[in-house]
Amino acid sequence: MTEPQVRLDLQRRQRLGMVEAIFGEHKTSEQIAACLSRLEAAGELALVTRVDQAKAAAVADLLSNVQFHAQARCLTLGDPAILLPALGEVVVLSGGSSDLPIAAEAALALRWHGIQSELLLDVGVAGLQRLLDQLVRLQRAKVLIACAGMEGSLPTVLTGLVPQPVIGVPVSVGYGVSAGGRTALEGMLASCAPGLVVVNIDNGYGAAMAALRILKAAITGEVAVNQ
Amino acid sequence: MTEPQVRLDLQRRQRLGMVEAIFGEHKTSEQIAACLSRLEAAGELALVTRVDQAKAAAVADLLSNVQFHAQARCLTLGDPAILLPALGEVVVLSGGSSDLPIAAEAALALRWHGIQSELLLDVGVAGLQRLLDQLVRLQRAKVLIACAGMEGSLPTVLTGLVPQPVIGVPVSVGYGVSAGGRTALEGMLASCAPGLVVVNIDNGYGAAMAALRILKAAITGEVAVNQ
Amino acid sequence: MTEPQVRLDLQRRQRLGMVEAIFGEHKTSEQIAACLSRLEAAGELALVTRVDQAKAAAVADLLSNVQFHAQARCLTLGDPAILLPALGEVVVLSGGSSDLPIAAEAALALRWHGIQSELLLDVGVAGLQRLLDQLVRLQRAKVLIACAGMEGSLPTVLTGLVPQPVIGVPVSVGYGVSAGGRTALEGMLASCAPGLVVVNIDNGYGAAMAALRILKAAITGEVAVNQ
Amino acid sequence: MTEPQVRLDLQRRQRLGMVEAIFGEHKTSEQIAACLSRLEAAGELALVTRVDQAKAAAVADLLSNVQFHAQARCLTLGDPAILLPALGEVVVLSGGSSDLPIAAEAALALRWHGIQSELLLDVGVAGLQRLLDQLVRLQRAKVLIACAGMEGSLPTVLTGLVPQPVIGVPVSVGYGVSAGGRTALEGMLASCAPGLVVVNIDNGYGAAMAALRILKAAITGEVAVNQ
Amino acid sequence: MTEPQVRLDLQRRQRLGMVEAIFGEHKTSEQIAACLSRLEAAGELALVTRVDQAKAAAVADLLSNVQFHAQARCLTLGDPAILLPALGEVVVLSGGSSDLPIAAEAALALRWHGIQSELLLDVGVAGLQRLLDQLVRLQRAKVLIACAGMEGSLPTVLTGLVPQPVIGVPVSVGYGVSAGGRTALEGMLASCAPGLVVVNIDNGYGAAMAALRILKAAITGEVAVNQ
Amino acid sequence: MTEPQVRLDLQRRQRLGMVEAIFGEHKTSEQIAACLSRLEAAGELALVTRVDQAKAAAVADLLSNVQFHAQARCLTLGDPAILLPALGEVVVLSGGSSDLPIAAEAALALRWHGIQSELLLDVGVAGLQRLLDQLVRLQRAKVLIACAGMEGSLPTVLTGLVPQPVIGVPVSVGYGVSAGGRTALEGMLASCAPGLVVVNIDNGYGAAMAALRILKAAITGEVAVNQ
Amino acid sequence: MTEPQVRLDLQRRQRLGMVEAIFGEHKTSEQIAACLSRLEAAGELALVTRVDQAKAAAVADLLSNVQFHAQARCLTLGDPAILLPALGEVVVLSGGSSDLPIAAEAALALRWHGIQSELLLDVGVAGLQRLLDQLVRLQRAKVLIACAGMEGSLPTVLTGLVPQPVIGVPVSVGYGVSAGGRTALEGMLASCAPGLVVVNIDNGYGAAMAALRILKAAITGEVAVNQ
Amino acid sequence: MTEPQVRLDLQRRQRLGMVEAIFGEHKTSEQIAACLSRLEAAGELALVTRVDQAKAAAVADLLSNVQFHAQARCLTLGDPAILLPALGEVVVLSGGSSDLPIAAEAALALRWHGIQSELLLDVGVAGLQRLLDQLVRLQRAKVLIACAGMEGSLPTVLTGLVPQPVIGVPVSVGYGVSAGGRTALEGMLASCAPGLVVVNIDNGYGAAMAALRILKAAITGEVAVNQ
Repeated sequence: MTEPQVRLDLQRRQRLGMVEAIFGEHKTSEQIAACLSRLEAAGELALVTRVDQAKAAAVADLLSNVQFHAQARCLTLGDPAILLPALGEVVVLSGGSSDLPIAAEAALALRWHGIQSELLLDVGVAGLQRLLDQLVRLQRAKVLIACAGMEGSLPTVLTGLVPQPVIGVPVSVGYGVSAGGRTALEGMLASCAPGLVVVNIDNGYGAAMAALRILKAAITGEVAVNQ
Repeated sequence: MTEPQVRLDLQRRQRLGMVEAIFGEHKTSEQIAACLSRLEAAGELALVTRVDQAKAAAVADLLSNVQFHAQARCLTLGDPAILLPALGEVVVLSGGSSDLPIAAEAALALRWHGIQSELLLDVGVAGLQRLLDQLVRLQRAKVLIACAGMEGSLPTVLTGLVPQPVIGVPVSVGYGVSAGGRTALEGMLASCAPGLVVVNIDNGYGAAMAALRILKAAITGEVAVNQ
Repeated sequence: MTEPQVRLDLQRRQRLGMVEAIFGEHKTSEQIAACLSRLEAAGELALVTRVDQAKAAAVADLLSNVQFHAQARCLTLGDPAILLPALGEVVVLSGGSSDLPIAAEAALALRWHGIQSELLLDVGVAGLQRLLDQLVRLQRAKVLIACAGMEGSLPTVLTGLVPQPVIGVPVSVGYGVSAGGRTALEGMLASCAPGLVVVNIDNGYGAAMAALRILKAAITGEVAVNQ
Repeated sequence: MTEPQVRLDLQRRQRLGMVEAIFGEHKTSEQIAACLSRLEAAGELALVTRVDQAKAAAVADLLSNVQFHAQARCLTLGDPAILLPALGEVVVLSGGSSDLPIAAEAALALRWHGIQSELLLDVGVAGLQRLLDQLVRLQRAKVLIACAGMEGSLPTVLTGLVPQPVIGVPVSVGYGVSAGGRTALEGMLASCAPGLVVVNIDNGYGAAMAALRILKAAITGEVAVNQ
Repeated sequence: MTEPQVRLDLQRRQRLGMVEAIFGEHKTSEQIAACLSRLEAAGELALVTRVDQAKAAAVADLLSNVQFHAQARCLTLGDPAILLPALGEVVVLSGGSSDLPIAAEAALALRWHGIQSELLLDVGVAGLQRLLDQLVRLQRAKVLIACAGMEGSLPTVLTGLVPQPVIGVPVSVGYGVSAGGRTALEGMLASCAPGLVVVNIDNGYGAAMAALRILKAAITGEVAVNQ
Repeated sequence: MTEPQVRLDLQRRQRLGMVEAIFGEHKTSEQIAACLSRLEAAGELALVTRVDQAKAAAVADLLSNVQFHAQARCLTLGDPAILLPALGEVVVLSGGSSDLPIAAEAALALRWHGIQSELLLDVGVAGLQRLLDQLVRLQRAKVLIACAGMEGSLPTVLTGLVPQPVIGVPVSVGYGVSAGGRTALEGMLASCAPGLVVVNIDNGYGAAMAALRILKAAITGEVAVNQ
Repeated sequence: MTEPQVRLDLQRRQRLGMVEAIFGEHKTSEQIAACLSRLEAAGELALVTRVDQAKAAAVADLLSNVQFHAQARCLTLGDPAILLPALGEVVVLSGGSSDLPIAAEAALALRWHGIQSELLLDVGVAGLQRLLDQLVRLQRAKVLIACAGMEGSLPTVLTGLVPQPVIGVPVSVGYGVSAGGRTALEGMLASCAPGLVVVNIDNGYGAAMAALRILKAAITGEVAVNQ
Repeated sequence: MTEPQVRLDLQRRQRLGMVEAIFGEHKTSEQIAACLSRLEAAGELALVTRVDQAKAAAVADLLSNVQFHAQARCLTLGDPAILLPALGEVVVLSGGSSDLPIAAEAALALRWHGIQSELLLDVGVAGLQRLLDQLVRLQRAKVLIACAGMEGSLPTVLTGLVPQPVIGVPVSVGYGVSAGGRTALEGMLASCAPGLVVVNIDNGYGAAMAALRILKAAITGEVAVNQ
């Protein structure tokens, strides 16, 4: 077996307008550090998801210019992008503090692309009033990201209340039939609320990238209409 | 193989205080008619669930004293029990007209045990206001039966709104991940609303019998307290 | 059981800006016609999904002002909304003619909300060149809806090629492990392409409503930025 | 990302008449302690479920007024509610000592709402006589909670023996096909015994809240009848 | 493709002491008749399982010496084997008349190998007394075959009551989670009753062949001990 | 929606050296005929899989130059390719006549690419001797395709006996746990026999194309080595 | 909650003729020791399954008269029963040394009931000759227990070779689709070999108890015939 | 229980032309060392798969002539076979460095049978250009092994690009729906690319053995054609 060689895809990042993201869960700290070194040399930002405290420390031992975000369980390379307020704000909702790591991953990924977000916690549907109390705040958002574990009803109820794009993120909290997040995922897919879209379980990063695509389409839209 | 012989369990019905119920789906019209004949001879009421129009007609050809309830897809033997208003009322909710056969099965089974029920249709959570508009009516009920297909959020939201017993009935309507009712079932089991209980998919009859057990416990409770 | 009563939710439609949609699969022609009559009386448009030829004919016997769209398997009430070219165009892609009913349902739902769409057929990834040949055409779109059965790779490859929002619609064509569309669904959710979002299997209508939400967010975005 | 803020729902607790319950499994000891502090300041009782010994100790280091219940794996805040004997007694049955933590969680949750319960152990159906020997004792109960792992037959047999409400709690003990509790859950849902209701796997707390709803309905029933 | 040629395995039948059995479900009437013709020419008995009325009639048109057993949904070739009372009797139990086709298939397969069986119907565990009433009759049997759909508790309870070999046959009756027989199957496999063995869903024939193996081992055992 | 347009991929067929194959199951006869007409005009061969008798007749009404193969449930366009004996022979094995349609589909697909095959029927592992008797014949083959339903052991046993490439094709015959072919598929994937490869359930065509790739690699190999 | 009380079922053990068996996996060492103490006081033998080294040591610290069997991962109380050679021998087969703990559990459980067994290792079907070489030895056995992981073909092939009762025990070794033993289990249930019976994954104890029931039926058979 | 005895199958290895491979995951270091000692005494090579660092070290303590390959997680006995360049080269592709252990297992297994391979990393389909850039290199290969986790599209796209045999290896990397590798596996099986074959999740060794069978068939083919 000849020695494998990592192939960076700088073209792709430019084409999509996204910071390089590395899925950290199955990689060793050596693999992550090697990858980040090459990106650093190329002057790129980077985001490493699903990294625990110990692996983060091991990477930091190998590479100085990284930052660990404990709540989001992510490593970042470089400083966050300049804020682009014209793109509008994203609101990230979650049913409870168990969903926080996923919501935080989404917010961090948005921030690294210049998008500001706000987090609304404890708005699960078992206490509906708490969600209804936030309606005005929700109407300010351009895109909504709703994280929910257990039976995952929050995105369904939310999508029935507001006309904006809603991205559901199933979260792998719970036990019994809700363990692993399958029930939340399928509940969101089966939702009777029209136009709810869904990403993989615990995929806060993916929800952020979907929001980014939508926000950019809006900007493009503006230009297209004005011409 | 010696010829098999049907064994009626009149003792059980007396012990549980329930009308004999026959699961009609896998039985031939001859088997159903034979069973009902013996119950008729014993002076019993009976309820046959999951019977289609054709099978019902074939049974009616063999036995005169039966009645078909098309919406509930049930056959009944004998007249319904005398109404027992002291037991209190049950409200049966459903998200839409697709859930109607299951809600109707529950209502019919209750009626054959002397329980009055009321049906609230089109109160799915994608249009939350319609449910909130009914809160006063819901508070009148002793027990609530909530039928829902798709993602099955109705029982969760309802259980967060009222303190009464709520019985969730997942319904096998939908397509893709919601086909067959599994997603609704698991959503109800995974529910973050405290105290929601669940029966098998499409089991309107079972929900009615659970409500009957609860209503009778209430009556017994009254006696126990007064003595 | 007191007689149930259908509850229309005109408020919700105004709030979300969507035409009333009725899931036709589990409803009788009588239920559909009754519902459409009330909407017609209220001067509303409507879309009934998942209706076969026979049920459509039965509804048309009861109600004159409906139109059946055989390829999309939908009934519509009223004339389509006025075209809103400022919202931009949607491109609906599909791997082959087996996916056509779902793609057609999405296109019809968009059209009834005033959105123009274009359909790109036979661009499955087993013959990659056919997709690459369409890149210029894809770059014109504001939102992309990619329908795919079997292993469902098309949305993944597409999301790696373009920066716009991509909505994946798994289609229930195939046999063995791909029967029912689960494999396509999970392949899209598991996708390594950043920002791909997904709706339920065969949910062309839902993909259209998600595209509508995105297109409207773009318009709103323009206004917000200009003010 | 602006800093998230916990939203207590004191209204909901009053509306439902339930002590605040916190699902402890996915929360850090810091999150649990912060939540309990706020509840303590509001003069509330609380119950934290699914907490292991180590996490309980860490919470106790942060907050003095909590108590750990090792068998039930729960933390409580405050003293249990005053006993309400008029509500009647609950009997919690279990097939064996492996089911004990779940049965204990149910009993503790009942106790914190003022309900007395009795625990019947080792009444699994493989040795039927042990269950039949307890019939008199079972008839004293107002509501029965039956915990069972493996094939989960206990609630089915029990529901055929007594007319009271029976709540089945599948337990995640076993191996092979019974690992995780799915088989017990589905066995209870599929049960041929009329009126058995079910909660999520290992959800002793949920079964207790269902029993509480039933007991309160009984009390309300008494009043309604007397007027 | 050269023309395929059917290969009979008369050696195997002699080695195992079993009549040739043909799984009829996926075969055409022509394939079945061709196969039976060759067996008839070889002077063999045969049993064809899972044949419906129409296919049976089509086979009978092609071959005179066959007999259809409607309840068991089987075709047989030749006369049943001479009864071997020394092998002892098998009791086939079933919870209700929905399980009858499977129980009848087992009884027919036994009869074609010279084994007498008795059928006990309506002994499901929701009415336990009916089973307990038959204990003496059960103790006469050498082997017990227990057919059950729904939650499939009958074999578990039975195996706790008697010391003989019990073969559980899950039956594909039921709806919701019990549709298809999976829940009954897994309930039997997960059973807490020691020594219960299981065959495939609806495999009455397989249960009969297992009983035959056991009965023959008993006979051999006798000889071995006496020598 | 602009009218969709079929995109043929003649380049791909040349690149891969394969006849155009159309998956017929979800297409109408009109769609199939339209597609075949364009291929006929281009002077191409074609194979349409999973077509029933009625749909085949409807296509034949629209297009004269097609041929239906009832056993393989396929339509073909054009005459089969010239036989290429130098590529070597394929042996297609199957456990019984229920697997015949899948085996026939594989053989037909091979023949349309110029490959000769031989079919060995009734070599299931429950009668092992029938398989062992064919060892010499098996050793003549260049590639083996083993079709099996039920538990799918045939490819495992075969792969332990011979050194050639073996392609396992799970077949959707059977009932209970084997219905649909999942058990056969997973049994082949889990196989302890080294080097067995697998295709989708019932995918006789895919197995043939895999065999074609292998046979051509062999030819290429020869050339590469000789140069 | 009143203090629970363990209920021994000495009657059941006498009725079934089996040593008390305790499922050790979910019990604490204190629970196991308490249970064994009561059995010891009653002069009973006992077998505790699924106990690891550490838990075994903790029990041994609390109770002197126990013995740990490392390979079978079982604790026993008391000396094994007197050998009953008249019952005949059991052969326990396994495909490889990974299946050894399950085979050893079966052998130990048999030995504690007075049954001698022999273990045949490394007779997996990928090397068929090793199994065929043992045919004479297999023919000596009264009952065969075949343990297999991966695709689980061994019991199928074996059941086609010999006429005795064969009990299949799926083993949870393997990875990918075979991880957890599901594939082996379903392969055995789907088996085309007539009369194979199956127990739960890794249930060596259950297979032993099934063998015991069969051996005793043989003995009874002898008596019945002689009288 | 008599002491079990390991049965080596040297015949099988000669018949298949493969080095003995031991599945190391469920075996103790003692079992592995014992097995390797016997093979070493017989002058055989061997490969032990799925061994972690700690177990490898424990085996090395017991046996000197073994070598651990950390990336492939394998132990080998003896020196690799002499290179056989005439068999042609295999290219092993993988989507990213998370798939490396599986790709490395395949390459190591090939090397131990005398086959050279080359590894192409980071050619996942989300950045399609990286794959297209390697087309010339891919065309040099005789057989391609494509490892992919997540949605597993790489083998599908690859099989549409080249005419050689492609073996897909699903990899158990990912989270949510892709955790465990099921989605990748089913995506490959459902693939619309004709002739793709698949092995078990993470089965790099199996893919290598399939490649070996193909390469040898090619050699045989050459001879057959020349004669």
